[in-house]
Amino acid sequence: MVIGSDIQFVFRFEDVEDASTSLLGGKGAHLCEMAQLGLPVPPGFVITTEACRQYRKARKFPDGLWDQIIANLQALEKATGRRFNDPTNPLVVSVRSGAPISMPGMMDTILNLGLNHATTAALGHEMEDVRPALDSHRRFLQSFGSVVLGLPGEGFERVLEHHRQKAGAHFDYELQPDTLNQIIAEFITLTEGRIPTDPWDQLKQAVEAVFASWDNPRAIYYRDYYGIDGDMGTAAVVMRMVYGNLGPDSGTGVLFTRNPATGEHVLFGEYLPNAQGEDVVAGVRTPMRLDQLHEAQPDVHAELHRVAKELELHYKDVQDVEFTVERARLYMLQTRSAKRSAGASVRIAVEMVNEGLITKEEALARVDPRELPTILLPQFEPEALRRADEGGAQIAKGLAASPGAATGRIALDPDRAVEAAAQGQRVILVRAETSADDIHGIIKAEGVLTSRGGLTSHAAVVTRGMGKPCVVGAEEIQVDMENRTVTAGGKVLEEGDTISINGARGRVYIGRIQTIAPSLDKLEEMKTLLAWADETRTLQVWANADTPEDAVRARQLGAEGIGLCRTEHMFFAPDRLPHMRQVLLHAGEAQELTSRVQTLERLESEATAARRGKVHDELEKARKEADASPAMQRFRSGLKRLEEFQEEDFTGILRAMDNLPVVVRLLDAPMHEFLPSAEEIPEFLEATQLGDDNDLNEAQVLALVERSREANPMLGHRGCRLGISFPAIYEMQVRAMLRAAAKLSAEGLHVHPEIMIPLASHVNELTHLRLLVDRIKEQVEAEEKTTVSVKYGSMIEVPRAALTAGEMAKEAEFFSFGSNDLTQMGFGYSRDDAEGKFLNSYLEMGVLPTNPFNTLDTDGIGQLMQIAVEKGKATRPDISLGLCGEHGGDPASIHFCHDIGLHYVSASPMRVPGARLAAAQAVLKGQKHSG
Amino acid sequence: MVIGSDIQFVFRFEDVEDASTSLLGGKGAHLCEMAQLGLPVPPGFVITTEACRQYRKARKFPDGLWDQIIANLQALEKATGRRFNDPTNPLVVSVRSGAPISMPGMMDTILNLGLNHATTAALGHEMEDVRPALDSHRRFLQSFGSVVLGLPGEGFERVLEHHRQKAGAHFDYELQPDTLNQIIAEFITLTEGRIPTDPWDQLKQAVEAVFASWDNPRAIYYRDYYGIDGDMGTAAVVMRMVYGNLGPDSGTGVLFTRNPATGEHVLFGEYLPNAQGEDVVAGVRTPMRLDQLHEAQPDVHAELHRVAKELELHYKDVQDVEFTVERARLYMLQTRSAKRSAGASVRIAVEMVNEGLITKEEALARVDPRELPTILLPQFEPEALRRADEGGAQIAKGLAASPGAATGRIALDPDRAVEAAAQGQRVILVRAETSADDIHGIIKAEGVLTSRGGLTSHAAVVTRGMGKPCVVGAEEIQVDMENRTVTAGGKVLEEGDTISINGARGRVYIGRIQTIAPSLDKLEEMKTLLAWADETRTLQVWANADTPEDAVRARQLGAEGIGLCRTEHMFFAPDRLPHMRQVLLHAGEAQELTSRVQTLERLESEATAARRGKVHDELEKARKEADASPAMQRFRSGLKRLEEFQEEDFTGILRAMDNLPVVVRLLDAPMHEFLPSAEEIPEFLEATQLGDDNDLNEAQVLALVERSREANPMLGHRGCRLGISFPAIYEMQVRAMLRAAAKLSAEGLHVHPEIMIPLASHVNELTHLRLLVDRIKEQVEAEEKTTVSVKYGSMIEVPRAALTAGEMAKEAEFFSFGSNDLTQMGFGYSRDDAEGKFLNSYLEMGVLPTNPFNTLDTDGIGQLMQIAVEKGKATRPDISLGLCGEHGGDPASIHFCHDIGLHYVSASPMRVPGARLAAAQAVLKGQKHSG
Repeated sequence: MVIGSDIQFVFRFEDVEDASTSLLGGKGAHLCEMAQLGLPVPPGFVITTEACRQYRKARKFPDGLWDQIIANLQALEKATGRRFNDPTNPLVVSVRSGAPISMPGMMDTILNLGLNHATTAALGHEMEDVRPALDSHRRFLQSFGSVVLGLPGEGFERVLEHHRQKAGAHFDYELQPDTLNQIIAEFITLTEGRIPTDPWDQLKQAVEAVFASWDNPRAIYYRDYYGIDGDMGTAAVVMRMVYGNLGPDSGTGVLFTRNPATGEHVLFGEYLPNAQGEDVVAGVRTPMRLDQLHEAQPDVHAELHRVAKELELHYKDVQDVEFTVERARLYMLQTRSAKRSAGASVRIAVEMVNEGLITKEEALARVDPRELPTILLPQFEPEALRRADEGGAQIAKGLAASPGAATGRIALDPDRAVEAAAQGQRVILVRAETSADDIHGIIKAEGVLTSRGGLTSHAAVVTRGMGKPCVVGAEEIQVDMENRTVTAGGKVLEEGDTISINGARGRVYIGRIQTIAPSLDKLEEMKTLLAWADETRTLQVWANADTPEDAVRARQLGAEGIGLCRTEHMFFAPDRLPHMRQVLLHAGEAQELTSRVQTLERLESEATAARRGKVHDELEKARKEADASPAMQRFRSGLKRLEEFQEEDFTGILRAMDNLPVVVRLLDAPMHEFLPSAEEIPEFLEATQLGDDNDLNEAQVLALVERSREANPMLGHRGCRLGISFPAIYEMQVRAMLRAAAKLSAEGLHVHPEIMIPLASHVNELTHLRLLVDRIKEQVEAEEKTTVSVKYGSMIEVPRAALTAGEMAKEAEFFSFGSNDLTQMGFGYSRDDAEGKFLNSYLEMGVLPTNPFNTLDTDGIGQLMQIAVEKGKATRPDISLGLCGEHGGDPASIHFCHDIGLHYVSASPMRVPGARLAAAQAVLKGQKHSG
Repeated sequence: MVIGSDIQFVFRFEDVEDASTSLLGGKGAHLCEMAQLGLPVPPGFVITTEACRQYRKARKFPDGLWDQIIANLQALEKATGRRFNDPTNPLVVSVRSGAPISMPGMMDTILNLGLNHATTAALGHEMEDVRPALDSHRRFLQSFGSVVLGLPGEGFERVLEHHRQKAGAHFDYELQPDTLNQIIAEFITLTEGRIPTDPWDQLKQAVEAVFASWDNPRAIYYRDYYGIDGDMGTAAVVMRMVYGNLGPDSGTGVLFTRNPATGEHVLFGEYLPNAQGEDVVAGVRTPMRLDQLHEAQPDVHAELHRVAKELELHYKDVQDVEFTVERARLYMLQTRSAKRSAGASVRIAVEMVNEGLITKEEALARVDPRELPTILLPQFEPEALRRADEGGAQIAKGLAASPGAATGRIALDPDRAVEAAAQGQRVILVRAETSADDIHGIIKAEGVLTSRGGLTSHAAVVTRGMGKPCVVGAEEIQVDMENRTVTAGGKVLEEGDTISINGARGRVYIGRIQTIAPSLDKLEEMKTLLAWADETRTLQVWANADTPEDAVRARQLGAEGIGLCRTEHMFFAPDRLPHMRQVLLHAGEAQELTSRVQTLERLESEATAARRGKVHDELEKARKEADASPAMQRFRSGLKRLEEFQEEDFTGILRAMDNLPVVVRLLDAPMHEFLPSAEEIPEFLEATQLGDDNDLNEAQVLALVERSREANPMLGHRGCRLGISFPAIYEMQVRAMLRAAAKLSAEGLHVHPEIMIPLASHVNELTHLRLLVDRIKEQVEAEEKTTVSVKYGSMIEVPRAALTAGEMAKEAEFFSFGSNDLTQMGFGYSRDDAEGKFLNSYLEMGVLPTNPFNTLDTDGIGQLMQIAVEKGKATRPDISLGLCGEHGGDPASIHFCHDIGLHYVSASPMRVPGARLAAAQAVLKGQKHSG
């Protein structure tokens, strides 16, 4: 129906055949679709987003719009047999905004538009009760006043409160007609009579308010933040009011076509008889479950069943529906895709395939890979969490370092955590920040909470590896080690008090919140979905695992190899750390002595016969000196112990990954991370039995520690730089690994070890260390009387390594992108510093579109990867290409890895299932684009 | 003369027409050339490097070699009328190694080969004195024993010393024939008779020893270090011995064809009559200057003149010649290009052009651009330095942080330095390390010495900027502030004692060493040379200058613009630092208050009429709160003071660079560099008058300082990140700069300010800050009632910026490569950490070919630059491209910049002349390659 303009701005629900969300908004389009499906929708019409766009430009209604609204309203009058302002049979409508994308901050709804004194009286008559009619009028005035006129809400509340007190009423519905009349009068005074009584004026102003609300600051902020197009505009929906409060055969409810928490295929929802929508929310009476409606109103219940089925058939997805029953007649007010838990998401997708509703490909596309890990983790029981939230139990927010929920007693140091755990208590380890010394406590704790540190702090990295909940950088929390208390949110907690943490959201609660473990049936459906994903994807998914336990779990979760075994984490265990420290402290001195011997060995081999004797004497002397040096003895004994540990570690991991590849990264961590702090030195001296029978004292250890301090440890003496400076450490690691491989091969296992060099930036580093590996390999093969097959490759995590990948590939049989460091160095961001200091504000201001540490920056860092892939393949066509940074678990990043032709991504075990799904989605997206 | 082989291994000097250095070695080839020129060379022959190469493979003489040697020796016998082993007229020869490239560590020379008891007697007869003949025999045995047989030299020295003592002789020439005979006998015993008496056997073994010495460890090490091809091999030169000790008409000397210290065109050298070469070195008698030879032996002197001229005509370069006069007859023993001082190098090049010897292009290629700065700096007077070296005055070595020599009294703190300087003393500031607080002391000191810190430490950076000598990281030095002493090399120095430092070599000396300033005439020739360079080069040379003084000097040295004005250095002055600290400490809080006001301002402008009133009230309240906040007041007052300083700075620099561009980089330094240390806080509070009338106390300042501490400041909250977080600082800088520009323009100057954004990694940062610049520009233009023209550009110093240069160029009118940071991030090296911890050993082991902080790594970092140039030009064809890192002064890096099409490099003022020359050389090299 087009009047006064070439453009049709207004559409009746029943006239629209192919509803466009961008033109009609989500709400409007779905109402039109329901009308087309023949579902019971109150009659009404949609004013388009185009009308809004033209309004925004001109700051007035476009030509013809108002005429079209009038015409449609008149048609509505005709259809309903009611009229605006009719003193006996008045038409009352609702006006709602409805943008193409759901967006908070905009005007939502004005109900009961059309009421004034006269029509209210008529409505009361129709309702056979004047009270609900007066209450509807009161609500209309209040919402129009605040939403359309922009008056402060408190003014209205003050009036209401005054009358509630005077009447001794707890709830609004207890207010009697006299009081309501008085309130209405006062509201009219309060609004200085600016609320029109003529429904036509009401309608015009309401539609304008909807359009204007598109540009209110909260909506703008929201759009900026989520990058939503600001020119889209909103639609407005006008439809006849239906009343659920006209007696026992009326009511209002919410329907989910399946259970959104579990995914079970049953109608799910609540229904409140003789009530309006707002009453359900007010929580005054307890609503009935939908299955109870079956007894009360079997016809309505049956109708709901039919509607649910129809909607799912149409939308091929679970719907979240609002409905009202007016005198036994069902009206659908809204439908939309239902939000659901991760578990429900998987179950629904799989069952819908089984029901023939959707294809496997659609099922794969339907589930968000990022949600899968949460299915595997303990979570707060939703009802318990709701109670905790309402009870104000949340005492702090921090960074979501490692997902999962945990509850337990506060332990303020690792020893206390171990003690309490030994007594059967569940413990949360709470620290200012953790270090390598806390590891035994972390292992025994249910979760970890720190007041300092970022998402790559020790606590964050270690707990993520363990799949243990962790909140870090919760700055509101103060840990007082002297009084052994924790202060947060104005509350002082003692050690032993119970708290709960949510590592997926970074929340901290006082008291216990019940957690629930994932039920096995959810996992069954996940297995089915992932099996479909495996059929589809071409990108392999490996796992990052540092221990045999992690490796076993990774394999269970579908990992096809270990893409990153970080050997430095192996040294953090309390029985190993002292030896590691001993080695690192003396590495410099030991290396000097060793170099001297090696130089003389070379001189001897090259000397003329006449000179040889003299060189030999010097060599013997140097050897004796080296052997007699306490530093060398400490270095060697520490290294020997570590070698035993490492062989054990590698044996366990290689055994767990029989038949699959295991990429071991040689030691990478910055030296200073291992070295003892001043307070830890006495303990360290005791643990390593130094300081007794020789001269090494605290001051000397401190001096050694100081010597290794660095201005920018991230860019310092770490990775292969350490391996080249102190070759004995890498030699030890390679020997332990190859020996483990040789022994397992002898047992008949098929092990596939791969050695990976960290932080290489120049091919010469790879050449230098390949010689070392070859030398050790020869030794081990001679000792074990066998041959060991091992691949040799490089991390690509330094920009220069990516740029010179053609050279790097001459030595490396495989590349593994260390996208964390590549992002740090490519952007020049220290992650620890950036996240605390400027990254958040960059994201808020839109300087960066996404956090590049979560989602790979394809423009910049991705370009480095593409360069490396191209050049690497040019040199070595069969080079194996993987990614083992944290991006390996991020779907968008996985898509990119798939697109540039990597062979695998490696993610932490918990993220392996999601990565499998994301890899399948990458294939489907590619097919869609090319198809 | 080829015998017994198809290959000619031996060439007589006079037979070679086109001497090849690679075949004959440097020494051999030059002897052949001199023979060809008709210059007096003793007869002899060269055994080729090919013979050596074959010998090394087979470990024996190749077929035919020995026969060819015999034939040539026999020819030599015939030519000289002497014979090996002839009891009356014996042939005595020298055997020398001579590689194509001069190389220490190889066998050098065996003189007097052919002597045994019989021939020594004959020689004595011929010499008419048996003593020198016996001494020659003694020397032969000693050198053959140690060099060919490889016996320890100490054995021979012990025998000699014993006899010297017994005879009461100080010098070997005082030993009488009896004693010499006894020594000879003992030498024969010591060598167990293994030294052959037959000259043919002597010759064979000596040639073998020459070949074998190619592979001695020192030579291998040297070749490895300098990347010299190890398969080149060495030649051996055999020639008749000539004797300068046959009476007053004999002698030996060294000739430089021009003065190698000053470049003056006069014969320069020394001559010792009646002596052998070794006697000159022994320093027993004082040699005469060559001009004195004119009187003693006018013919020889004239002959030397002729020879010098001939050699320069042939080699077109200054020669360093060894000669001997045997009975009034001149023999040339060797010639090679003379090493010369930087000043001489320039003068010689220019004068040779004027003499028509070489072309301007050859002159430009002849001078090493790296040497030019030293011409401008004070240097130690060579003789005084030699005395100091011999006297063991050197007490420590450190890193050569800033070139030049300085001598002065030790001052251990900046205040003391200022005091002493005020009393007219020359002062060297000696500190463990310097900080911003030392700047007034550094300004007053002649030079700076620190025991800690690397080449980018505060002291190094500041002194380089000032062109002041500096040695850093001299770890042998201990500064004891309590006792106010400096300990080094076992010596304890008090404050006020005199030391000298050489910042070009990183040396520290006790006591005063006289320094000399460059003489003006040297600079005249430099001007000429640089004028030629300017005619040739296409790459512009700009300078890095932070002060008006630097700018003036840069312009004097030929800078065509300021490519980098680092504003952070402006804040380090003691009168400014407190204000800067005040601003930074309160920036966070002030920004929060400001943001709140700005948000409300925005809300007010967007609010509906009905709401506006309320928002306005809130806004007024927020403004009042902000104005009343002590943090805001401190922030603003600090900023105001800084703005005054900045306007003054920019006015000075822009004025100095009238007509030329000045690129100002907005604040870049990491916050923590400016903040006070714990000890400095009271002083800071006093300086800023805080801590009295309000609540700010030491603990609070400390907490504010702590909050800004970072794990990796290099990758932290600095550069434009700080500018975006705390916009008021950049606003202040831009305002000061544009106001200065506006005022100078009003005076009629032609100023060309350019604003450069540091550390950008994403185009959005540039967009964000361009809006800021535009806003301030509008304000200033309104205030000053004029227009200001200013270019806007970006540092390209983060890898991602280079990779996304196409985007960056949408905002940036110019790029300036910050090659220091680009190298740090591209390699993942923190320069401060790398240079102390692993970079040196990487260079020693050959893992890196050169230090990438000195010479641009073209393979990796250069690739990033090329990508940026390409993409930048694609987006903006007229984009201006420069480089302002330290590589801007390095010739190899300048060549690269020229090759990839940059428009300019910017170097520190002292390196501007060298950069001009290097830019010219880049053109010449390109012409050579393409021609």
